[in-house]
Amino acid sequence: MALARRLSRLGTETAFAVSAAAAAWGAKGNTIYPFHLGDIDLATPAHITEAMNAAIADGRTGYCPGPGIPQLREAMADDINRLRGTAYTADNVAIQPGGKPVITKFLQAVMDEGDEVLYPNPGFPIYESQIEYLGGVARAYRYLPTERGFAIDLEQVRSLITPRTRAIIYNDLQNPISAESTQEEREAIAQLAQEHDLWVLSDEAYFETRYSGQSHSISSIDGMKDRTVILYTFSKKFAMTGWRLGAGIAPVEVAKVFSTMNTNNESCTTHFVQYAGIAALTGDQQPVADMLDVLRGRRDAACAMINQIPGVDVATPESTFYLFPDVTEAVRRVGATDVDDFATQALHATGVSFCTRNHFGRRQPGEDRDYIRFAYSGIDEHRIREGLGKLKDWIESA
Amino acid sequence: MALARRLSRLGTETAFAVSAAAAAWGAKGNTIYPFHLGDIDLATPAHITEAMNAAIADGRTGYCPGPGIPQLREAMADDINRLRGTAYTADNVAIQPGGKPVITKFLQAVMDEGDEVLYPNPGFPIYESQIEYLGGVARAYRYLPTERGFAIDLEQVRSLITPRTRAIIYNDLQNPISAESTQEEREAIAQLAQEHDLWVLSDEAYFETRYSGQSHSISSIDGMKDRTVILYTFSKKFAMTGWRLGAGIAPVEVAKVFSTMNTNNESCTTHFVQYAGIAALTGDQQPVADMLDVLRGRRDAACAMINQIPGVDVATPESTFYLFPDVTEAVRRVGATDVDDFATQALHATGVSFCTRNHFGRRQPGEDRDYIRFAYSGIDEHRIREGLGKLKDWIESA
Repeated sequence: MALARRLSRLGTETAFAVSAAAAAWGAKGNTIYPFHLGDIDLATPAHITEAMNAAIADGRTGYCPGPGIPQLREAMADDINRLRGTAYTADNVAIQPGGKPVITKFLQAVMDEGDEVLYPNPGFPIYESQIEYLGGVARAYRYLPTERGFAIDLEQVRSLITPRTRAIIYNDLQNPISAESTQEEREAIAQLAQEHDLWVLSDEAYFETRYSGQSHSISSIDGMKDRTVILYTFSKKFAMTGWRLGAGIAPVEVAKVFSTMNTNNESCTTHFVQYAGIAALTGDQQPVADMLDVLRGRRDAACAMINQIPGVDVATPESTFYLFPDVTEAVRRVGATDVDDFATQALHATGVSFCTRNHFGRRQPGEDRDYIRFAYSGIDEHRIREGLGKLKDWIESA
Repeated sequence: MALARRLSRLGTETAFAVSAAAAAWGAKGNTIYPFHLGDIDLATPAHITEAMNAAIADGRTGYCPGPGIPQLREAMADDINRLRGTAYTADNVAIQPGGKPVITKFLQAVMDEGDEVLYPNPGFPIYESQIEYLGGVARAYRYLPTERGFAIDLEQVRSLITPRTRAIIYNDLQNPISAESTQEEREAIAQLAQEHDLWVLSDEAYFETRYSGQSHSISSIDGMKDRTVILYTFSKKFAMTGWRLGAGIAPVEVAKVFSTMNTNNESCTTHFVQYAGIAALTGDQQPVADMLDVLRGRRDAACAMINQIPGVDVATPESTFYLFPDVTEAVRRVGATDVDDFATQALHATGVSFCTRNHFGRRQPGEDRDYIRFAYSGIDEHRIREGLGKLKDWIESA
């Protein structure tokens, strides 16, 4: 039986292959140090689960409105406004089963076939795969290494804009490279969007996963609210990845489109989980601070270890739970044919499992450095030291 | 800011307007008899919630595989095989956040722009809206009234098939009209699918919502397994509408496509809810039998009352929780301009709220009878008698 031709454009995340390789190596009795997971090994705070159960006991097991229950939409708007200095109302909020559905819905709402969309690369791989699946033209923009990490190549962004460009995907506090815009860079992106009448998807999944300072949203810059859709997720801040709860915060006309899409695709987001979301936003925030303390300790341990490895170095990012070290020299030193071979060799020599640059969008012309991504959300501090110690020994002895 | 042109094709369910009108009328202090809801006012069985909480306590709050956890996929295949006489394995099962996502994914997997898809009309309104949104051509097929309810107009189905026809959506145990195929009719549909090489979406949402007899699946007919996708949902059988849990049971190549779409759109279905699904399928079935007893009592009460109303009559269906009476004479009797005006007048005169034929797909040429849909899933037996008594008095006095 023939399937639809559109499926020839259907891409995916390729990082699952890393999980599979790690699991296979672990199944042979080897110790695995899982730096490949973007998931969190910490428990969801108990008061969040309790709020969900209270909602079930209260009969909240039936359908609810497509864009979410009014109380959560209000709490979400209040929370966004408090932390971003914006002025959204519940009408701007479309609750979604996770952050990812916001990407699909944003692209369907603003992009037609043949339209061009700019997206960060390396970046979250679903941007590229969904632009192309939905018939758009994915135009990658790059980052340049700086003293403090990475900066967007603004000249390149400017050069990529054409009359067919409809939108730019902007992931300040970036996965996988942990870049964070300066206010100057953020304003430059905003200015380009306004000059060229572009929609902006501001992926703010890691907005509150930060260890010092304050995050800022491009939506709070003058003139941006009406062209920006914020991707919000409960996943990272509250250790709720498997709960599937997020939201698009958007101009009302776009939020209404999202709501209609929800009616067609999902009916609604799990009803009682939305009460858990209210508790997460409005309840005790100490568990969030405690989780950040744990993650900060892991970051510091990982950065210290990585910078001791010959031919590997990394800046210390203030946000996300990812590190994106340049391993060009180390790849050469161990005699690997490329960065993916380096990852395979590292797994088999040390048990340390990680993704490479190649899991985060197609490699671009002119890239001559090699990078890998360490996630420290799924591995404790002790095992971070142990695993990266083994990695250091392996590379040193090469 | 301009939105995508594709949104001009984005349809929706219109039944929400009925809920809104009922709520507005109720807010003025009027008693409402809610026959418009396809939702269930009974509690989810307690052991299902308990299994979910055990999973949370066990740490199942992180991501899980896109097509679902292996244990649920296995339990689902076993359950389908036991009740349908099929031979599926876990590889055929793609767990989804509800039944509705199966419609969207099926159409994306088998239909390209310009392809034709046959669908039941009156029928679940999302079939029509999603075929058209995704660029297909929606070809409605009709039902003819019979002694025992309704039968598919097989001659019409045959006449609608062209070289561009790719699929037929088949909703045996039908919403809104409660039709159920004879084995002869089911085999005729299967034969047409095989003759013309069509995919079949078999929407089996109400497969186990039945009061006597045994349901049958088109997938168990020779030659059908490789061209059929079963839409399964936990919503109706287990009173889990707001939990958002369902599955597509499909040929392996299609299940894999669904899984990739999950990775792109949803990441996964809520992790711990899947453990609730295992408990639903494999645990105590007495609560399901008890719910069916309640629904049977409501059906009998509603059918008895409806058949006492002058100009209204209905057969007693053995499945679903819907009644689809012909109200052509009653519409005339009360002097309503059309069936929607009849519904509005009935709401204001009696508080009885219901959907009409017009909420279930576009009216087709040649339709000269008027129908309404009563759902008895969201209203108890006492209020069924009271509300339909008022409706009878109102129509009788016209």
